[in-house]
Amino acid sequence: MTDLPLTRSERAQLAMMLEVSAYPKPGNVDRCHDYADTRLEHFLASTIFVRPAFERAEHGDGRIGSLIREAVRLTSGHAGGNTHFGAYILLVPLLLGDGLEGALAAIRETDVEDAIDFYAAFALTAVRMGSDDELDVNDPESIRAIRERGMTLLDIMEYSSRSDMVAREWTNGYRLTRRGADLLHEHGCGRQAIVQAFMHLLAAEPDTFIAKKHGYEVAVRTMEHAREVVRGERDIAALDAECIVAGINPGSIADITIAAIYVALGEGWQWDC
Amino acid sequence: MTDLPLTRSERAQLAMMLEVSAYPKPGNVDRCHDYADTRLEHFLASTIFVRPAFERAEHGDGRIGSLIREAVRLTSGHAGGNTHFGAYILLVPLLLGDGLEGALAAIRETDVEDAIDFYAAFALTAVRMGSDDELDVNDPESIRAIRERGMTLLDIMEYSSRSDMVAREWTNGYRLTRRGADLLHEHGCGRQAIVQAFMHLLAAEPDTFIAKKHGYEVAVRTMEHAREVVRGERDIAALDAECIVAGINPGSIADITIAAIYVALGEGWQWDC
Repeated sequence: MTDLPLTRSERAQLAMMLEVSAYPKPGNVDRCHDYADTRLEHFLASTIFVRPAFERAEHGDGRIGSLIREAVRLTSGHAGGNTHFGAYILLVPLLLGDGLEGALAAIRETDVEDAIDFYAAFALTAVRMGSDDELDVNDPESIRAIRERGMTLLDIMEYSSRSDMVAREWTNGYRLTRRGADLLHEHGCGRQAIVQAFMHLLAAEPDTFIAKKHGYEVAVRTMEHAREVVRGERDIAALDAECIVAGINPGSIADITIAAIYVALGEGWQWDC
Repeated sequence: MTDLPLTRSERAQLAMMLEVSAYPKPGNVDRCHDYADTRLEHFLASTIFVRPAFERAEHGDGRIGSLIREAVRLTSGHAGGNTHFGAYILLVPLLLGDGLEGALAAIRETDVEDAIDFYAAFALTAVRMGSDDELDVNDPESIRAIRERGMTLLDIMEYSSRSDMVAREWTNGYRLTRRGADLLHEHGCGRQAIVQAFMHLLAAEPDTFIAKKHGYEVAVRTMEHAREVVRGERDIAALDAECIVAGINPGSIADITIAAIYVALGEGWQWDC
């Protein structure tokens, strides 16, 4: 048995696969749970189909906006709909920049065309926007406004960071991604470390995907329940079942967990133990 | 939502992913069952890591023996050990030949070097040989014997086909693979069609992987139990549990199921419904 070196694209695909396979992850599609419209196979199919976009990012062939758009396009063909939009927002800069520092440098260089491409990617998905969003992706006026104001994709993310924790990663230096990678190192190797990292991130901040879908109070309550799980005061399987029944899925924490796995794998974290 | 065309390599990866995700499949690693040393993640990691070998096969860049060896090499790096050796034996000719007819033509052209490469691939795995095998992969004398007798890889498969149903696919025109693809078409779309195809194949012939590990009688008994499941006289989940406890895993039927999914996908069978 030899440990073969992985390309960055393979590492990103592996991160996506490991995240969705890990369980229990309260509320999310995992090895033991599907939602009616989005199943394990959809997440795993995206893991296979996204590769050409990741390889282009790895080789610096394209800009952030167009590469995110390409990743979404390649993985929107199945009936599961968008599975990893937030993950691509985090992974594409990491692949382009070969790490956190490089990712932040690439993010600072985004321009108006990246913003336009990003909105085109958004339009391919059914991703939920905050109801008070002035820049509605389905509104052609938004594109005009972006051009008139000369907004870069980083500007868009700063604008969205109030209500979107994935966007916030762009503006705060991948803070939760870094924390997630540290959690993986702290909690050993393999599947259980992923579950621990996920739960600690869920306990750290209200998941904004939940907030957009169910309101801020539900996101805060889920965070508090996660804290109880981390403290050993609540059963993780019971919380999982409650979330699944209520349709409460912490999709943004899942996206950040994928980015954290990608970073940790690059730092020698062992998925296989 | 658009249905993007898949490359042959992506289709082969998708077939591997769909097979291992489908459940319940009595005795095998699936979404709900791991073995201690080989887990779902190992099978899915192989699905990601094997791609370069599949792409070379798709582009005709290499011979059957060396490409099987490359597929095994790329996917032997994790602690799960060999996960898909039999599947590669079936998929590589299908990728090279772009279908069953082309696969059989490619198989007829194998030579002594393919046989030698195949034995080298074998040596990378812990795949079980029949105890009465004269050509032991761990015996350098076997390589000498292959050269002296001028045995092609097809000769090796003919030799192995007595005790190995994957090898038999090479010599009987992919008969069970074809049957499996027909079963997928018959049973509709998606996960449940895969389970049905798997169960009908398991009910058709004794699994030779089980026979090598536990003896022919156990393989026959498992086949008979599968027949009872197909006839509605035995519960599939109960059979699954019995097989898992006894370590009875129909690995060769799983390999043939992967090839069947690959063929069926190429004929328009829908995995996503």
